[in-house]
Amino acid sequence: MDLTGKVIAFDADDTLWQNEINYRKAEREFAKVMLPFCKDEQQAIAYLMKVEGRNIPLLGYGSKTFIIALVESAMELSGHKADNRLIEKVIEIGKTTVSPKMELYPHVEEVLRELGKSHRLVLATKGDLRDQQDKIRKSNLAGYFCHIEIMSEKDEENYLALIEKLGITPQRFVMVGNSFKSDIIPVLNIGASAIYIPSEIIWAHEKTEEFEDKNLLKLKSIKELI
Amino acid sequence: MDLTGKVIAFDADDTLWQNEINYRKAEREFAKVMLPFCKDEQQAIAYLMKVEGRNIPLLGYGSKTFIIALVESAMELSGHKADNRLIEKVIEIGKTTVSPKMELYPHVEEVLRELGKSHRLVLATKGDLRDQQDKIRKSNLAGYFCHIEIMSEKDEENYLALIEKLGITPQRFVMVGNSFKSDIIPVLNIGASAIYIPSEIIWAHEKTEEFEDKNLLKLKSIKELI
Repeated sequence: MDLTGKVIAFDADDTLWQNEINYRKAEREFAKVMLPFCKDEQQAIAYLMKVEGRNIPLLGYGSKTFIIALVESAMELSGHKADNRLIEKVIEIGKTTVSPKMELYPHVEEVLRELGKSHRLVLATKGDLRDQQDKIRKSNLAGYFCHIEIMSEKDEENYLALIEKLGITPQRFVMVGNSFKSDIIPVLNIGASAIYIPSEIIWAHEKTEEFEDKNLLKLKSIKELI
Repeated sequence: MDLTGKVIAFDADDTLWQNEINYRKAEREFAKVMLPFCKDEQQAIAYLMKVEGRNIPLLGYGSKTFIIALVESAMELSGHKADNRLIEKVIEIGKTTVSPKMELYPHVEEVLRELGKSHRLVLATKGDLRDQQDKIRKSNLAGYFCHIEIMSEKDEENYLALIEKLGITPQRFVMVGNSFKSDIIPVLNIGASAIYIPSEIIWAHEKTEEFEDKNLLKLKSIKELI
């Protein structure tokens, strides 16, 4: 893929830094405290996923939505017998995802520094405004980007609005990310290019069928960008 | 106040449209279902306020934060004896604040149309990203603004960042809003001007002492802007 003259946008969670791992840890904690009511930990986690999916249209993404799903799941899984100590415990588990330790992936700073010499770089992330701003601040990466966009949903309409804000055509826009559903498909659909760097773990609600495309490049690590 | 050459920014909730009224309604519903555990409705609401205040630094603003505060308050007010039906009830009450009916204040469209002929207009609102985007969409007012900014906190730093984005000096920025704490004080502190239009109801956590200033104008209604 020829990147000459392109504006390169990066997804943040699980593209520049680890994120899902904090949710996976919280999910396992949740499954452990719910074990008295479930046949195994998998059942607890599968139920939680179902409740999260049910709430996305109304509540969106992020740790507050996660906390509410934990409370609802605890009550429903227990046959509405969850006592208040258990509910307080799952809220406490959920709150650990709000402001976790920030761990950048290897080579991220090096790649941004290098690409920033020849390209305008953008950060385009989805999620809760406060969560994301907190993570961006803690990452110390804000200085590498000419524009930071926090989107409530990564759909075609929002990508087109971002591209218009940048004053370019879709043909000059490249999106780099780990979610085929959010970072790749809508971007290809509007005629822009995408670079897909799968992460080790991906949230159940971001899973989708993958395909190949002339405007799509798949890399193993962000380091291959330079 | 001379508005010539100024960029005029409007707060949204309780400046352009009703918002607090939905939370007040939900608070009263909450107080009603908590009555078996409280000496009166006021006690329930006062406790909820306390829990909200305790959570703001971690969770910020908006309806999801409100839902979590309702759950925590229900458990604590009941001496940790709230059964699951009661907790489900307060979550249901909280969810009514997520996507409520949109009611513009009188004369809002007329004022924006008129001022938009001679000024760049901005929307600058605080809160949850998804909540606010949903309300902006339903208001049908987006077309009046050259820029829409959803802020996680209305502090001096974020106002300065917005003004820089607009490519102007603070002296050319006027903020119109109903919260003395969020729309007026930080704006005056950075050398910009403010127009204060108090609303009938204001959230406990937005209350603060008011004062006069040469760069501050107080109006009774948004209609007085034209």
